[in-house]
Amino acid sequence: MKKRVGVVLSGCGFLDGAEIHESVLTMLHLDRAGADVICFAPDRAQLHVVDHRTGEPAEGESRNVLAESARIARGRIADLASADASQLDAVVLPGGYGAAKNLSDFASAGADATVDPDLRRLLLAMHAARKPIGVVCIAPAVCAAAFRDTDTHPALTIGEDAGTAAAVEATGCRHENRPVTDICVDEDQRVVSTPAYMFDARIADVSVGIEKLVHKVLSLA
Amino acid sequence: MKKRVGVVLSGCGFLDGAEIHESVLTMLHLDRAGADVICFAPDRAQLHVVDHRTGEPAEGESRNVLAESARIARGRIADLASADASQLDAVVLPGGYGAAKNLSDFASAGADATVDPDLRRLLLAMHAARKPIGVVCIAPAVCAAAFRDTDTHPALTIGEDAGTAAAVEATGCRHENRPVTDICVDEDQRVVSTPAYMFDARIADVSVGIEKLVHKVLSLA
Repeated sequence: MKKRVGVVLSGCGFLDGAEIHESVLTMLHLDRAGADVICFAPDRAQLHVVDHRTGEPAEGESRNVLAESARIARGRIADLASADASQLDAVVLPGGYGAAKNLSDFASAGADATVDPDLRRLLLAMHAARKPIGVVCIAPAVCAAAFRDTDTHPALTIGEDAGTAAAVEATGCRHENRPVTDICVDEDQRVVSTPAYMFDARIADVSVGIEKLVHKVLSLA
Repeated sequence: MKKRVGVVLSGCGFLDGAEIHESVLTMLHLDRAGADVICFAPDRAQLHVVDHRTGEPAEGESRNVLAESARIARGRIADLASADASQLDAVVLPGGYGAAKNLSDFASAGADATVDPDLRRLLLAMHAARKPIGVVCIAPAVCAAAFRDTDTHPALTIGEDAGTAAAVEATGCRHENRPVTDICVDEDQRVVSTPAYMFDARIADVSVGIEKLVHKVLSLA
């Protein structure tokens, strides 16, 4: 039986959506490892649209998170509201500002962030079923916020950025520094994380970290 | 000396821009092979915008090819008009409908397609300097159209779609069928092609074909 892994996207482009390289590398390494990938994204407007040439917000433009995520998923994607933990063996969240802007408000609220209710429900249900969660780049902070008001506080890495690490720890989680090519594993809580583009990294190094994350997640599933 | 490879993007999303997986895998395999990647895209409006959930064109929306390509390039991208063959060791074009809609009008005009003048100039200058060109998915058809009114007619593959192959051959090129995991090499003309998502393929298989293309292109550079 192939393992079924949900990949939760947050748009298309690292400044206002899912980090594209991290999303594609997650899908690549899952497919190479023999897993089935099922993509999800929330069906609502992005926080905003950013011009990726300039880094500036585009005025008067609105894009839908699910429609933009469908670009990465090649059209094969479902509404996050339909995600059912009983139908999945694992969940992986790529990063990008979309995780902190569209799947949560971590980008503005930090440790007090509110997480998309469908995503929070999915993560808590996966954890309750002892199924693994993989989180990439800034997504560990979203995971930490999702579990903030529970008894679960996994060990996580977002690399080595002290401010972000402090926000993660303010939710009750333990932060561990890691380089881009490594992962942080909480075997007991079944949460695996890797920093990816939290560093100004080469794509080849990001791929090494995500491949390790995928293999560890699948070994825990 | 690291080899400098230009990657020409055509937007962000396979239905109206560059195929995202092919673009990221091209960058991944170039980086893993030790090459420097320099991304380019034309600074003008896309032919149209397609909703990737539904496959339908979005009415009243306009996007810029360079701005959307910058999402894949993480902001590090230059106007295609500035591309200089003397500064590059090779050029690779990922596919997606963007190659046939934004870098040319192959999607509507077939063998009679007009190619973006900056791209045509770049491809002809690379060829004149005996520098290799790699083309993925539908991009071989754009390459064929660029060389149509010259004495150069490389052997190419777009997989095995008979209609598209016939359009490629109508430009004067020779078409050779290939599976997704293989490449077509014209050693004499220094053109390398792979079908990628011309097939309804798995990303792991697309990655195998693109990795072979990248290694062959770099060996010819």
